[in-house]
Parts: sequence; structure tokens; C-alpha cells
Amino acid sequence: MKKEQLLYEGKAKRLYQTDQKDVLWIEYKDSATAFNGEKKETIAGKGVLNNLITSLLFEKLKAEGIESHFIKKISDHEQLVKAVEIIPIEVVVRSTVAGTLAKRIGLDEGTKLPKTIVEWYYKDDDLGDPLINEDHIEVLGLASAEELTLLKEKGLQVNEVMTAFFKEIGLDLIDFKLEFGRDENGQVLLADEISPDTCRLWDSKTGEKMDKDVFRRNLGSLTEAYEKVLNRLGGVKS
Amino acid sequence: MKKEQLLYEGKAKRLYQTDQKDVLWIEYKDSATAFNGEKKETIAGKGVLNNLITSLLFEKLKAEGIESHFIKKISDHEQLVKAVEIIPIEVVVRSTVAGTLAKRIGLDEGTKLPKTIVEWYYKDDDLGDPLINEDHIEVLGLASAEELTLLKEKGLQVNEVMTAFFKEIGLDLIDFKLEFGRDENGQVLLADEISPDTCRLWDSKTGEKMDKDVFRRNLGSLTEAYEKVLNRLGGVKS
Repeated sequence: MKKEQLLYEGKAKRLYQTDQKDVLWIEYKDSATAFNGEKKETIAGKGVLNNLITSLLFEKLKAEGIESHFIKKISDHEQLVKAVEIIPIEVVVRSTVAGTLAKRIGLDEGTKLPKTIVEWYYKDDDLGDPLINEDHIEVLGLASAEELTLLKEKGLQVNEVMTAFFKEIGLDLIDFKLEFGRDENGQVLLADEISPDTCRLWDSKTGEKMDKDVFRRNLGSLTEAYEKVLNRLGGVKS
Repeated sequence: MKKEQLLYEGKAKRLYQTDQKDVLWIEYKDSATAFNGEKKETIAGKGVLNNLITSLLFEKLKAEGIESHFIKKISDHEQLVKAVEIIPIEVVVRSTVAGTLAKRIGLDEGTKLPKTIVEWYYKDDDLGDPLINEDHIEVLGLASAEELTLLKEKGLQVNEVMTAFFKEIGLDLIDFKLEFGRDENGQVLLADEISPDTCRLWDSKTGEKMDKDVFRRNLGSLTEAYEKVLNRLGGVKS
């Protein structure tokens, strides 16, 4: 497999073509951003941690029957994935109130929700990734009604598997963001990453935050927190 | 009918009990507010105009088979309504992009939507009346799934009747906000008001704005605009 031209550089990853049409090469970057890019820092070692954690989680999900774009990890900060066209909807699944949900509906952070909530956000930096509903998605032509049903189902499945998985290693999964893409046959696949950048993880005993809120809220060393998550997942930095 | 104690004072109306348990007395105020109360003015004559317009529109809707809390107009700025418990959801129906929708999804104001959009907003001044989805409504216990289905249906019915009605008098109905309430039997009724405070109305030929945007955006005399709407509806200030 040969890395070819850069297709896209996002806030946390670079995406390259390969000599195989349906395979892309992802490089995880050492940058942390928050508040739609207003807060930005380079954090040495972050890319490696997220690549390792994402790889472990996608493998875990696959073992539980949930396919993703992930093919394999090829270095400590790189992985190969299936080429998909990303659906510009961030699927947010929440079990406990935190972050923007607390501000939106006025419940205290930490309140356990009586049911799991699914939210759609329009993946558009210029608009600040706003919350949208099914009607907005339809008029913008972002996804079909069938795809939305599937996205919600998959979001809830991932929540079930990951909640149990993290529980075993002493972490409460508070909420997380997923992205999905369409492969060349129009099949919808889980894509992007699953890491402490995209999940809120709180220590089940102490409530310690072990996710990007450490960076957003200046709570300490982000890499120390992410490394603890990696170690609990059974992974080790090479 | 006797006006008794003040039950509630909102931004645009005062609500009084009457000597009849299931009937309330509404006084329309001369105040205009926008941007969640940040912009505020007293505008002489506004209360009368909104009372007259709302009364005409609720009567029109009733003639088309859509019931509301409206009983009758009892003076130029007062009306009697059935007592309902307001459901704290603002139901917004949109045919054309304007206002916050333009900012949210990035389409230009004035873009005709390929389908009518319905949005839910949480009626909570402290939270700034945020957009919410069905999951938020469920966890907050604001309305049942059956009620939401009804709210959406009624919103679209009102849209159909009012769009045709305004078209006849040379006005394009761009979007509007409805509120609903439950009567003592739990029946859901259209409530609050329908006026240029809660609808966007543009002159079909010139595009002139004849609604609260005149106030929000300092486009001229609000009462002149509202009086034109009243006159086109066949109403006259007494």
C-alpha cells in the first residue's frame, strides 16, 4: 500500500489517497481544538493516543458485529480505512447530561437521562455545527429518511456496546459523537474516529474527566488522561 | 363576565382569571420585545392591532374547522379565551427561509423551502428558547409523542389555511410560531396569539416586511405595518 496525495486535512487528521481506489490512509495529528476551532493547541503524543484508542474501539465494535470504515492500524499514528463519502451529520448520543446539552435544556451536568438521546448536528464549521432536525436534513438533502433511521439505530447500538465495554474498565460513557459515510455502493458505514476527542468518559468511581473536556476546561494534562484510557483498554503506547 | 386577579404577565399580554373557572381574560399590551427581551419598546396602539388581528385569524381558522382557545373579542385590546395549560413548546412552521433558520442552515433569507419545515423550541426565556428535538421533549416531559404528532399536524393545517388566506390579500406567509395548551380534559387546543408578532408576512409584490422584523430590524413604523395587515384582513381600528 502506497500513500499518495493529500485529500483533506481536518482539525485532527490528514486523509490521503492510496494506490488502491477504495482505501484511504489516515494520519492522526497532534493538534487539539475546541469551541469550533477558537481554542487550539499542539499536544505532542495526542495523535498516537487517538489512533491507538480508535483502532482498539473499532476492532471491539467489529467483534460485536458493528462494521466501520476501519481496516487496520499501520503505525502508531496511522491507519488504513475504506474510502467513504462522509455524511455531513454529526450523530450525538447522550446517556448523561453534559456540555451543550446542559446549556440547551437547563439540566445540571451529570444528570442521568431517563432515556438515551440522539441529536443531529450539521457538520459545517462556518455555521458552528448547529443542532438540526429531520426537516432541516431533508431540505438540505444531507441524508435520506432511511439513512437517518439507520444512523439512529447504529448510534444506539454503538452506545450499548461501548457503555458496557467502558463500564468493565471503570469508565462511564456520558456521550459521544459519531460520523458515518457512504461507500461506493451507497452502503452506510460508521466512519471517522472514536476516541476521548469524540466521547465523554468519566471515571466511574471518582468522576474524573478523561476526555477532551480536560483540554476544553483546562483540567490538566490531556495526554495523561488519554493514556489512562488507552491503558485501561489494554493498549500500550509503542 | 368579571375580570378577576392577574394570573400571568408576559411580554405582550396580561392574563386574568374571570368569575368563570374555564374562561380567562386577555389584555394585549403596547410593548414590543425582540431578541429574547434584549430589545424592548412601548409602541402605542400595538396591543389593539394584535388583539384585532388575532381575533380575526382565530375566527377565520374556526370557520375552516380549526378550533382554538379564542372565545370572543370584548374590547379593542381584550379578548376572552378558554383556560388552558400552555405546553412549553413553540411550534414554528416555515415555508421560506428567514431569521434564525438562515443563520442555522446557511441558506439565504427568502429561499423558498422545498417542503414546509416544523421546528420545536423550548419555551424558556432563561435558556433563550432553544431549538429542541423529540428526545429532548421526552426527557423534559414537555409533551407526549401523541401530542407532538397532533402539534405537527395542526401546525401544518394552520399553515395551509393561513397561507391561502394571506395570499388572497397579497401577503406571503413566510413562517409563524404557534403555542398550544391543554384544557381541563387534556384536549390540546391552539392557543396564544396569531399576529404579525408571531408570523412573518411579506407583501407578495414588493416583498415589504409587514411583521415584527420591522421592529427587530428598525425598518420603519411597526404600527403602520400592522395596520396595513389589519386593513387587508378587512378589519378596522375602532
